[in-house]
Formats: sequence, structure tokens, C-alpha cells
Amino acid sequence: MKLRVIGCYAATPRYQTHPSAQVLETGGHLLLIDCGEGTQMELRRYRIRLARIDHIFISHLHGDHFFGLPGLIATFQLLGRERPLHIYGPKGIREAISLLLRVGETRTRFALEFRELTSTQPETILANEKLEVSTLPLNHRIYANGFLIQRKPGMRKLRAGVAESLGVDKAYYRKIKQGADGVAADGRTIPNHRLTEPPPPAASYAYCSDTAYKPELAAWIRGVDTLYHESTFLETEARLAAETGHSTALQAARIARDAGVGRLILGHYSTRYRDLEAFRQEALGQFPNVELAEDGKAFEWSAGQD
Amino acid sequence: MKLRVIGCYAATPRYQTHPSAQVLETGGHLLLIDCGEGTQMELRRYRIRLARIDHIFISHLHGDHFFGLPGLIATFQLLGRERPLHIYGPKGIREAISLLLRVGETRTRFALEFRELTSTQPETILANEKLEVSTLPLNHRIYANGFLIQRKPGMRKLRAGVAESLGVDKAYYRKIKQGADGVAADGRTIPNHRLTEPPPPAASYAYCSDTAYKPELAAWIRGVDTLYHESTFLETEARLAAETGHSTALQAARIARDAGVGRLILGHYSTRYRDLEAFRQEALGQFPNVELAEDGKAFEWSAGQD
Repeated sequence: MKLRVIGCYAATPRYQTHPSAQVLETGGHLLLIDCGEGTQMELRRYRIRLARIDHIFISHLHGDHFFGLPGLIATFQLLGRERPLHIYGPKGIREAISLLLRVGETRTRFALEFRELTSTQPETILANEKLEVSTLPLNHRIYANGFLIQRKPGMRKLRAGVAESLGVDKAYYRKIKQGADGVAADGRTIPNHRLTEPPPPAASYAYCSDTAYKPELAAWIRGVDTLYHESTFLETEARLAAETGHSTALQAARIARDAGVGRLILGHYSTRYRDLEAFRQEALGQFPNVELAEDGKAFEWSAGQD
Repeated sequence: MKLRVIGCYAATPRYQTHPSAQVLETGGHLLLIDCGEGTQMELRRYRIRLARIDHIFISHLHGDHFFGLPGLIATFQLLGRERPLHIYGPKGIREAISLLLRVGETRTRFALEFRELTSTQPETILANEKLEVSTLPLNHRIYANGFLIQRKPGMRKLRAGVAESLGVDKAYYRKIKQGADGVAADGRTIPNHRLTEPPPPAASYAYCSDTAYKPELAAWIRGVDTLYHESTFLETEARLAAETGHSTALQAARIARDAGVGRLILGHYSTRYRDLEAFRQEALGQFPNVELAEDGKAFEWSAGQD
């Protein structure tokens, strides 16, 4: 998986900070997660091909997470897009986007497919042969979801030596890699687990922003390779974090620790802070593998490694 | 008047070009004219104090002219604004902005005062002791207005020597400067024009974007000091300009010439062009005083000079 952080700062703008947006590349897909104002300009800055984005996930309807979406859709239209665009976000997003396009008399040639979210329990919202995306209901001032993105495991790995020595017909190898039992030359059924090894583990990513400290998250994202968890504040502002539905770096690290994730990326910093290293230091007290998101920073990982 | 061009490119984004927005400073007011996506970041870049913006004029509801407005309003709220904010734009703007704020459960502490525009004839939409703003209905694909901003003329200038020699009571000087006749020491009424000279001319500015070539504009903006007129295309794309409701540089210059303006600023360039000098050259064939808007460029003028 390749992650490009487009913007990782909270709402109050400071020159040269960008609101939330990320692009995750996995299984041939480019997934856009949140789309703060100016995202389309930043996507161009990083030479990300807009035409490859088919799925956009919006965590919640505060402006710093979706005010870039209408402009991006208008740009898709100007660029002649024809492929459907899938947008996942809280109930209300369809009406808001539709009205903005309607007052500009913009009709898209491509289909805008909205999936409006209301559940307070995790649910699978996208599943295809390459990946699965589920919601992670968060605890913010308004209805918000994080997103868990998991590559689908590949096929099981054939133990070719074993299969050959038993005289299993090669015509059945594919079915066996998909999980079927085999038949030996002497007619005996050979259970699948003797003929195959488990598939290589599949990479995964969890995005949790914006949210107050929510311990249930740890169970939902258990063992994920990389977790992006908001840390709008430091512990010195823990009360403000609780009041505004945000987390501190320490709380983000507790989620990472309790979930046993591979790596924690911190982000969504309040623009009041100048020194981001303080966020890393605070988190390191709870969890050993902490990185700092920065606008434009890229991360890459495979399953089971960081 | 001081004009800061925030963005002057048409919609299709190219890295490092910004959509339409301008700030005009005059008579102690900062007027924001159009507000494309990313305007709030650019206002910060140029260190323009957001709190001084009380009036925002939106020409039309295409995204590249107003998708920065919801984010700017949300930022005003985050910054603790209390003063009312006046927004002038086509009918529909109130509903669009209100819905965007509502889905984010954002309630502004300050009053949002919308003036929704529908007239196809010029009308005065703001008048105070310092300035007057009128609409300039344009000819675009959707309902659109330019804006004419005129400083109010000051008081007439007293001919102090004449007034003294006639023995006019100094207590009446202020009324005389406001246009009243005077009374000489011998009781004769002295007509105002003998006691005063006309006030110094007041600076003016016209913003015309987006619009196809519309000859009537010339009459409405006669003698204005500075005209910003869109030139999305060059004459080589004249047909495309007509089809899309835009102007060429040559057409913009014809308006400037027919209106006898002091200076023409070209802008709203299609991002297909790399060489802006071609726009200036095309316009210079019709009108002698042509400048090119560029993102971030500043202009300053007084009445009667450029």
C-alpha cells in the first residue's frame, strides 16, 4: 500500500498548511480519503492522476474534510470524465453536493453514486476482488466515520512437492489453491491444509479522523499494518480535546498499542503548534513505532511490515 | 484604490494557478470580489486581514468563483468573528451556503446577510458615505454580474479668498462645501458655484467576469479608472469564447475603448495558454493601456490616473 498525505492539519488555516486529504494506492485503486478545500490543487502538485480516482471516502461533513469535493467534481466534469464516481460519506452529503452543482447548472456526464452512511456500527461499504473497505464509526461532534481498508488475501500457496509426490492431477491445482481438497493418484482425498500453505498476509490501513479517544476502535482495527489516528492536541490540551471531540497524541498511541498495529501515523494537528516532534515524543511513551504525517509525505508498506 | 488579484485563471486547475478572487481596498473597506476554491489560503499568503472583510461580492455560481466561500465563512467562525458579513450574489447562494454550513452543524455567531441578485439591469447594492457598488449584469452561461465600485466624491472645495472678500460667515463654510449657497456680509445670496470648486474626482473600478462580449457594458462603466475584463481566450478561439460565454482579449479591449476607461486589466485566462503576453498584444491593437493580471499582482490608482 502507498499512502500520500495531501493535507494533515486541522481547520484553522495557516499559510502552507492543508486540511485533511489522503490518497491510498492499493490493488490498482486510488482511494481518496477526505477532501478538504484545495485538495484538487494539491493532487496536481503531486501529479496524481485524477482520472484514476473512482472512490472518495468522506469522514464527516466539517468543511476541512469535504469543502474540496465540489470543486474536484466540477474539475472531473471539465476534464471529460465518463466513469462513475463513488462517494461514501455521512447522510446529507448527496444533497449538499447536488445543490452546489445545481446552482452552477453543472450536470455531470458521469454518474455520481452516493453511498450515504448512518450506521454507528462498522459496516462494509466497498468490496471487490482486490480490497474491502469498512467504516469505523468515530466519536466526534458530528456523525463521523474512519475507514478500514484491507487488501483481499490472495490464493493459498500450493505445496507443489507434496502434490506431485501424491500424484494429484495438475488440472485441480487452481481449485486447491482456492481452498478445495485434492485427490491423490490412489483415490484418497487429501485435505487442503496438507496441500497448501496460507496465502501471504494482505496489507491493511485504518484512517481515524476526527475523533475523541474511543477505546472500541482498537478491537475494530486489531493488527492493522498502518493506523493514521488524529492527534489534534497534546496532553496539555487534553480537556480541550475532549470538549471538541478530538484526541491527544497519547490517546492515539493508546489505540495503536491496544490494537497491536504495525505503525502509527499521527496527524490532524491543530495549527497552534509549531513543533510536531512533541507529538511523536508524547506518543512514543505508549507505542514504539510512531511517525508524523506532514503535508505531501508518502508512506509505503506491505502486510506484516511497516 | 488598491487591488490585489488573488487568482485570475479559469476553472481547469493547473498547479500554481488560482481561480477567481480579488480584494479591493478603498475608503477604509476591504471588498472581496469572487471567492474561488483556496481563496482563504491565498488571503493568508498575502497577509490580508480576514477580519477587515465585511462585504463579499460573488459574480456567479460556477465553482471557480465561489467554492472558496463556505470555507472562508467557516474560518471566520473559527476566528471568533462577531461582525455581520454581507454577501452579494445570484439567487440561490443563500440556500447553497446555508445547507453546507448546516450539514456540518456550523452555526455562525455573526450574522450572514445575503443580498440575492436577480435583476438584468444595473442596480445599486451597497451605498455608504465612502463608496457605492452597483451590479453590471453580464452575458454568461448562467446568471452573472460584474460590479462597479465608485468612491463617493468628497465635498466641494471652498474658494476661501472669494468667501472672505464677500464677508461670508465662516459658520456656513461646511454647508457651502456640501453644496449650499452662501450669504454675503451685505445680505446678498451668493450662488454655490461662485464660492466653490468641484470636488476632486473619485476613483472607480469595474470588474467584469465571466462574460461574453457585451457592448452595453461600455455605457455602464463609462470613464471608469480601471476595468478588469475577462479574456478567457484569444481571437484564435473566438468561436469557443462565444459558445462558452467568454470573451477574447480583443473583445475586452473593445469594451475598454468604447467606455473610455483609464486602464484595462486582462484576466480569467484559460489554463491552455502558457504565454500571457499574447493577450496583451491582442488587446493593444484596440486600446493603449493594457495590463495583465497575474495571481498575487497588486495595482493601485487614484481617480483620473492609472
